[in-house]
Amino acid sequence: MNQWLQDMSWEEAKKAIQNAGKVAILPVGSVEQHGCHMPLGTDSYVAITLAEDAAKEAGALIVPPLWFGWSPHHMVRPGTITIRPEILSEITFDIAASLSHHGIRKLIMINGHRIVNVVWMQLAAEKIQRELDMAVKIFDPAYMSKEIVKDLGFGAVGHAEEIETSHMMYRYPDLVNLALAKDNPVKDAHLYSVDPSYEKDTLCYVPSTYAHAKKNAEIAGGTSGEPTKADAQKGKSYHEHLVKRLVEVIETLRER
Amino acid sequence: MNQWLQDMSWEEAKKAIQNAGKVAILPVGSVEQHGCHMPLGTDSYVAITLAEDAAKEAGALIVPPLWFGWSPHHMVRPGTITIRPEILSEITFDIAASLSHHGIRKLIMINGHRIVNVVWMQLAAEKIQRELDMAVKIFDPAYMSKEIVKDLGFGAVGHAEEIETSHMMYRYPDLVNLALAKDNPVKDAHLYSVDPSYEKDTLCYVPSTYAHAKKNAEIAGGTSGEPTKADAQKGKSYHEHLVKRLVEVIETLRER
Amino acid sequence: MNQWLQDMSWEEAKKAIQNAGKVAILPVGSVEQHGCHMPLGTDSYVAITLAEDAAKEAGALIVPPLWFGWSPHHMVRPGTITIRPEILSEITFDIAASLSHHGIRKLIMINGHRIVNVVWMQLAAEKIQRELDMAVKIFDPAYMSKEIVKDLGFGAVGHAEEIETSHMMYRYPDLVNLALAKDNPVKDAHLYSVDPSYEKDTLCYVPSTYAHAKKNAEIAGGTSGEPTKADAQKGKSYHEHLVKRLVEVIETLRER
Amino acid sequence: MNQWLQDMSWEEAKKAIQNAGKVAILPVGSVEQHGCHMPLGTDSYVAITLAEDAAKEAGALIVPPLWFGWSPHHMVRPGTITIRPEILSEITFDIAASLSHHGIRKLIMINGHRIVNVVWMQLAAEKIQRELDMAVKIFDPAYMSKEIVKDLGFGAVGHAEEIETSHMMYRYPDLVNLALAKDNPVKDAHLYSVDPSYEKDTLCYVPSTYAHAKKNAEIAGGTSGEPTKADAQKGKSYHEHLVKRLVEVIETLRER
Amino acid sequence: MNQWLQDMSWEEAKKAIQNAGKVAILPVGSVEQHGCHMPLGTDSYVAITLAEDAAKEAGALIVPPLWFGWSPHHMVRPGTITIRPEILSEITFDIAASLSHHGIRKLIMINGHRIVNVVWMQLAAEKIQRELDMAVKIFDPAYMSKEIVKDLGFGAVGHAEEIETSHMMYRYPDLVNLALAKDNPVKDAHLYSVDPSYEKDTLCYVPSTYAHAKKNAEIAGGTSGEPTKADAQKGKSYHEHLVKRLVEVIETLRER
Amino acid sequence: MNQWLQDMSWEEAKKAIQNAGKVAILPVGSVEQHGCHMPLGTDSYVAITLAEDAAKEAGALIVPPLWFGWSPHHMVRPGTITIRPEILSEITFDIAASLSHHGIRKLIMINGHRIVNVVWMQLAAEKIQRELDMAVKIFDPAYMSKEIVKDLGFGAVGHAEEIETSHMMYRYPDLVNLALAKDNPVKDAHLYSVDPSYEKDTLCYVPSTYAHAKKNAEIAGGTSGEPTKADAQKGKSYHEHLVKRLVEVIETLRER
Repeated sequence: MNQWLQDMSWEEAKKAIQNAGKVAILPVGSVEQHGCHMPLGTDSYVAITLAEDAAKEAGALIVPPLWFGWSPHHMVRPGTITIRPEILSEITFDIAASLSHHGIRKLIMINGHRIVNVVWMQLAAEKIQRELDMAVKIFDPAYMSKEIVKDLGFGAVGHAEEIETSHMMYRYPDLVNLALAKDNPVKDAHLYSVDPSYEKDTLCYVPSTYAHAKKNAEIAGGTSGEPTKADAQKGKSYHEHLVKRLVEVIETLRER
Repeated sequence: MNQWLQDMSWEEAKKAIQNAGKVAILPVGSVEQHGCHMPLGTDSYVAITLAEDAAKEAGALIVPPLWFGWSPHHMVRPGTITIRPEILSEITFDIAASLSHHGIRKLIMINGHRIVNVVWMQLAAEKIQRELDMAVKIFDPAYMSKEIVKDLGFGAVGHAEEIETSHMMYRYPDLVNLALAKDNPVKDAHLYSVDPSYEKDTLCYVPSTYAHAKKNAEIAGGTSGEPTKADAQKGKSYHEHLVKRLVEVIETLRER
Repeated sequence: MNQWLQDMSWEEAKKAIQNAGKVAILPVGSVEQHGCHMPLGTDSYVAITLAEDAAKEAGALIVPPLWFGWSPHHMVRPGTITIRPEILSEITFDIAASLSHHGIRKLIMINGHRIVNVVWMQLAAEKIQRELDMAVKIFDPAYMSKEIVKDLGFGAVGHAEEIETSHMMYRYPDLVNLALAKDNPVKDAHLYSVDPSYEKDTLCYVPSTYAHAKKNAEIAGGTSGEPTKADAQKGKSYHEHLVKRLVEVIETLRER
Repeated sequence: MNQWLQDMSWEEAKKAIQNAGKVAILPVGSVEQHGCHMPLGTDSYVAITLAEDAAKEAGALIVPPLWFGWSPHHMVRPGTITIRPEILSEITFDIAASLSHHGIRKLIMINGHRIVNVVWMQLAAEKIQRELDMAVKIFDPAYMSKEIVKDLGFGAVGHAEEIETSHMMYRYPDLVNLALAKDNPVKDAHLYSVDPSYEKDTLCYVPSTYAHAKKNAEIAGGTSGEPTKADAQKGKSYHEHLVKRLVEVIETLRER
Repeated sequence: MNQWLQDMSWEEAKKAIQNAGKVAILPVGSVEQHGCHMPLGTDSYVAITLAEDAAKEAGALIVPPLWFGWSPHHMVRPGTITIRPEILSEITFDIAASLSHHGIRKLIMINGHRIVNVVWMQLAAEKIQRELDMAVKIFDPAYMSKEIVKDLGFGAVGHAEEIETSHMMYRYPDLVNLALAKDNPVKDAHLYSVDPSYEKDTLCYVPSTYAHAKKNAEIAGGTSGEPTKADAQKGKSYHEHLVKRLVEVIETLRER
Repeated sequence: MNQWLQDMSWEEAKKAIQNAGKVAILPVGSVEQHGCHMPLGTDSYVAITLAEDAAKEAGALIVPPLWFGWSPHHMVRPGTITIRPEILSEITFDIAASLSHHGIRKLIMINGHRIVNVVWMQLAAEKIQRELDMAVKIFDPAYMSKEIVKDLGFGAVGHAEEIETSHMMYRYPDLVNLALAKDNPVKDAHLYSVDPSYEKDTLCYVPSTYAHAKKNAEIAGGTSGEPTKADAQKGKSYHEHLVKRLVEVIETLRER
């Protein structure tokens, strides 16, 4: 038996909830353009693979993934699906409420979609903590890899850039076609950044307008960053760092 | 390349939308108890496998699955997740609105969860048709197999009964443990039925109360029907019938 | 004193709630086109007359009628009024919550509007059962007359057809002008039916689009079926069958 | 044919909308305790009878009544039904939107429930005017009878007092049992009044708390005022005054 | 230390809540056109100055002002800000819920915006009373000055008329430029009035349509009434009357 | 005339909108505990003083402040007021929609409340950009002072710490009582930080639970950080840095 809830019978789930120390993981991603070289489901696959590898190691329970995220600014390219943030927050609340009913007391949301999903996840997390008295943590690769990203010599967090591409090349090589990747280096923009590790003065992030996103998507097929510098081996180090961190978070919650 | 949207780049999705004759399929299921012999994700797996096999044959596009459904009456068993119907309707509307933006004009929702999900799907379908001017069809195995179910000698539609079990045994044998199945025959209840093919006077379906569902779940681990009579070969006939029907619906929509 | 709540003083209501065994009936219909020969309020009158006759016999309490239903597909003809299903569900919930406050524990919704209102009534019923701990039954003439409709030799359930027309001719002859009735026989449509007793494979019902409904309304003034075959005597048998069934439901609830 | 929409076929409704100068009337009341001598539906009957008599004279169209109102403060007595004001406002909006679709441009809401319903009616009216570009008037007997109430020597507006009782005695004598009426004179309360014609300094009306309403309902069975002074002949003058005023409003709107 | 909550530390607030006898005041106004001679914030300033002077005298606590109101009909002039009434009601509810958490049991809303804000304040007040079990009073200058307005010889309540102008001239002389005031006398309109002290038959108030408001705003820069008759000395008497009345309300609540 | 909208007549506002290059500023703060030495309104005062000084210099228009923010985690101390984030987002949307109606095309929200308000501001900003086609920037002192905070030798961003305290001492000395300040140094927490300039791996911010916040508030009266190190002169440098940055943002928007 694996760690996915959907593959267990209810009797197996009952045991798994106890074995998991009442910790559950919800992988959340997006269906949005990721340049010409990566699939629309990239963010969801990132969340899924982290959940699988960490849950195996730490013995946590994984809830079926929420494939869809908030992506208004990527609607400029075919295939992107965007859900209103308040709807995402409410579906997540209901998932948590159901889990709570069955004895789960701690929830880790893994966000493969970075800064945009974080917004509604914060709303959901606060509501879940307050109304259901559960502990909630938001685990986001971009926030949880500040140190290793510097060590690996990657550039700034952009979109479908060398970080995400390296990760996908390591875990889902068949879904990446590096030959189609186009670079669009992240410039040191005055007063603005989407990189959570940015150390200078900045305005707060707001998803781009449709017009702005459209212009940007025409430069390099939707990428921000330098995907041609991606490397599967670096992706492996990045993945293992994140899995280790996630296991650490799971175990901290279990100890409580 | 397969038919799943999440595995395509946006350039591939662009072509796929045209090739699919502007038809997309959304598989929807549930995470809810299915007796001691079947996994919580049964309804979702049913929707997924039908979508995959029919889309391959008819060339339609498949949207990532919505794993969660409306299951208030199955909360009596661990692992069940229930989402408010209005939230499910709104997330489906947003998926449709995004697809519409990219050129999809016809949507088929496959409902692996039978009569309960149908309620909110009808609300969503009407709103999508009215506000987005798309054509929407709700394809539900229980409604679309009235004829073959009689031919195969199956009993009435219940829950985790011989019909579902046979289907899962054919498509996901590793997820079924028939040795644990317990029977709970569907009795000819006066004035009531959940079977869409029921021909006698009946009240309209309302999800059971928690108290009623609890009592019922104690009889045979959550089943209604006779899963011990399940048979993978019959499951094959049932599956092929449904795939054929689904292909037929896809092609009818494409012809428009 | 009759059985209608609105005609009682609060002291009389207090007694009536006890005498009724804590059972209340809410008649719900619609204001929508019913061809050239029947009034817009047909569905509401159907619910009202069933409520009156059964309540008299079984001693139940009747709440003032909700005249309006969900009729988006009949807006193609003047006079139709459609209310959003979520609003209908919420007003019904508030009615139930008020009744619950005064001691009513069982609610029967009579739906004169058939398959379309059933959708939001299911939502309302589940919420009322879960949040107010009341028992709720949805009594719909089309679902509760499968047997007699066959016996009387009526055709399939359509709209303003021989079934509804016969019923109205028996109970409200002044509101029917049979001379204006036009036939539009229900054809055996492949993969589709609105008749709850349909025994073959089918997609789930979704209210017609405006465009489709408009085209259909031009054929025979809005009817589906053969109203010219209506007969008051058959309407009497149909009515008495339904009243008997409704009395049966009331008494079953009272016994609890 | 009478003026009620529910009794017309759609062809008759089409003509009636034109004949009515695009004016429709919506009677709204409440189901709430009206002392020991009057029925729970008093407010709705008041709205209905005014609508019927004025529509007959002025040729306007009447929409089926909304029997339910906002009555949180009368829940202290059995039989009272209270609907949340936002739900009442939305159902009224949908009724107006449907009428607007069929050519009605002016809507008169008759409020038999006085000061409490006025609140949500103002919200609905503003929204209908702004979003549907219709003209809306709220016709309330208590606001529209300031002059005649003084002339007839009635006391202040209370609840189930001599004004309402006289009106009901004239129009629905069978529903009034004056022998059971109890007096509870309206005192000249410092800083407060529910009477719209009150000429002194006052706080704005807020529906009583449950506790306050309960205490008050114990004094005289739920009345405020002196119903024993009611008189059918005065009720006739009052009724005729209001019908005349309502006809005047209808005609002013038609002239536009 | 003054009476404003925002100027206190939490330790001071703790004491102030007790000293105030658990009474808090919330000043609410609007940002809307007030003719050519008065500022957009007039209604808010009116609420603020009454709150300050009465709180100083009676020792009540003042919550920071809600500057914005419901002003759909004044959007015809630049600078007006209008908030949906349901949003205003909900923000007020949350303010009350927070105060309740800290021990406040009685809330006085001062409405500087007259008849329009009263609508949503009534909704908020009822909900606060019912769900939070607090006592709520709506103090509106136009309702609370019926007697003195007659004594001072002012005309009817209009908009930016001599009453408001006199008040502002007394309290905020720098914000008034009487030289720019234009008169637009309130005529004795048949069947209609916005003046709460109007003693004749009337329809209920509904905010003007945009078209109607636009036409009216062109007559005298947005005024209804005769601001040129304004007088600071009369404004002083008016202000002192209102402060006295407000102190009276505060003290009545404290005594409870 | 100053830059505040509420102090202008509509004719002045009309001119000011043009002179401001269609840029408006909305100051938003909170009413929440700020230790024993600072007032509950600290965050709002911060936003107000920045708005005033920058608007004076750059000629922008200032909308009346929104005094209230989202502060669920500070409800542990008396006087704190918390509004649901969705309500704050909607009131802000309505303010923007009103401004848009009058010609404002660019909106700067100044957030004196740091990381918590940012969540709902991002939701509001995206919706305003998408639905109203305005440009929106969120200006937050904690994000816009990363560089100078290091230069001034301040510690990490906490709550009511030396940064906020220095700022208040410079601008509102009368509202600060440094003698009551207590230190609670921000420790280098593993995997967590509320400081936007934090450069190490971190989980995403979620407002503390009530239990956690309560425990924390008991240490040093609600502070996190070292307010006793506050210095008015440093506050001046900090303030001037922020005003300069804000003027820069205003002018960039005007140039568009």
